[in-house]
Amino acid sequence: MEKVKRVNRMVALTKLLVDSPQRLISLNTFCDFFNIAKSTLSEDLSSVKGSLKHFELGTLETVAGAAGGVRFIPYRKGERANQVLEDVYQRLMTSDRIIPGGFIYMSDILYDWHVVSRLGEIIMTRFATSHPDYIMTVETKGIPLAVMVARAFNKPLVIARRDSKVTEGSSISINYVTGSSGRIQTMSLTKRAIPPHARVLIIDDFMKAGGTAKGLAELVAEMNGVVVGTGVLVATQSPSPKLVNDYEALFTFYSIDEQTKKIHIEPIFDEVDRT
Amino acid sequence: MEKVKRVNRMVALTKLLVDSPQRLISLNTFCDFFNIAKSTLSEDLSSVKGSLKHFELGTLETVAGAAGGVRFIPYRKGERANQVLEDVYQRLMTSDRIIPGGFIYMSDILYDWHVVSRLGEIIMTRFATSHPDYIMTVETKGIPLAVMVARAFNKPLVIARRDSKVTEGSSISINYVTGSSGRIQTMSLTKRAIPPHARVLIIDDFMKAGGTAKGLAELVAEMNGVVVGTGVLVATQSPSPKLVNDYEALFTFYSIDEQTKKIHIEPIFDEVDRT
Repeated sequence: MEKVKRVNRMVALTKLLVDSPQRLISLNTFCDFFNIAKSTLSEDLSSVKGSLKHFELGTLETVAGAAGGVRFIPYRKGERANQVLEDVYQRLMTSDRIIPGGFIYMSDILYDWHVVSRLGEIIMTRFATSHPDYIMTVETKGIPLAVMVARAFNKPLVIARRDSKVTEGSSISINYVTGSSGRIQTMSLTKRAIPPHARVLIIDDFMKAGGTAKGLAELVAEMNGVVVGTGVLVATQSPSPKLVNDYEALFTFYSIDEQTKKIHIEPIFDEVDRT
Repeated sequence: MEKVKRVNRMVALTKLLVDSPQRLISLNTFCDFFNIAKSTLSEDLSSVKGSLKHFELGTLETVAGAAGGVRFIPYRKGERANQVLEDVYQRLMTSDRIIPGGFIYMSDILYDWHVVSRLGEIIMTRFATSHPDYIMTVETKGIPLAVMVARAFNKPLVIARRDSKVTEGSSISINYVTGSSGRIQTMSLTKRAIPPHARVLIIDDFMKAGGTAKGLAELVAEMNGVVVGTGVLVATQSPSPKLVNDYEALFTFYSIDEQTKKIHIEPIFDEVDRT
């Protein structure tokens, strides 16, 4: 490809990096694509990195060596995280979300890719040090969020099923007791999904007693994997403690008053240094 | 925010646009964010547009007027589409995907956000003129693909359930006959999901006889919506015709030979002008 102006190259470089979060792209790939020398690319990358940092839009990470390259990490923390949580909070507070029986209708938020992609970045940032190999959820409502967490981590997604499907081959099933209703349910996962010793981050939309999260953890254990964390969008305040000890939520749900139509829910904001 | 060098601004501008495909962002938003005049922004946008076009990385579209702004459209066609289809094709051809009963294991591809986000862009490009308001699928395996189609269109996702869930409020259920096995199944959708007259694009991972797609279309009709298209990742060659007339697939599946472990499947490539 013929040489182009630096600013045009930088636009394309940014696009390619941002579009593949966490994916390590070799420097040679870019040198070939833009037909430039490695020294020129290094200058370009350092400028992209500086720009992203200046506007707090994420981080470029360079890995040295033959197997090295560069990747974009879509960290979202501080004000940029809190703003997203505040927006979701405002949407969650509207009284027409109350469904008879004390439930909140959340599917419109859970299926809104724009919000969910940003929530996925927040969850990735909060679990960054847990270094998962796989992101796992159970059908259905948590799937879009889990897809976006998988995107932010650039790791494969694994979806447990409520029944075992013939089109996924041989699978492992477990029975578990839902903590809230006390019913016995079945979850299954195809044996191909997780290799032994894989590090698994569990994602779900809602946690009440934690029975589902515990069931997912048991499935992981059956496959000789390791659960490195459990992240949920909303966790209820009670019951406490839950069936899993170690989880992190973006929102805590306290109560619904069906008479006054008030929903009591609180975001768990990032701490921001306001000095 | 203080003024920065043009190239740094362009990086941030590209990041913000690419990260919100199809979302119309007002020019004032950018002028305020960068603290620049509209004329400067116009020059910047025209340069971003030119760069993306030069490297065939998508399109910027400007909408004039008070309610106007600019949006990034992640069109993926021609060689950039065919390359993705070729990669998926190579992965689909491996013989260890064959599951007894003549099925192919595809979940690893369907749950790979990187591939699926690109397949979502291809489907968006092929259905661009159908102008859907909603992207609809049925649980479970097609959900990540539908999420990414929704992302590429910037439209809300709607997920039909195999049973009706109390946490989604009142819902409409239909019974339908799966074309392949002839079994009667139930699908349901919460009444809040689709307003009347909404234009709905149906997305699924696999189509054999088309019973599921037909069931989804009936659900849309029950809600007084309009189906503007049906897109699937893989459609089988037989039976033909299917229960829905108007669908588009990215791959055609012909047969599996369980003896020779050969999978016969073909991508449906974009036409490319090679002159």
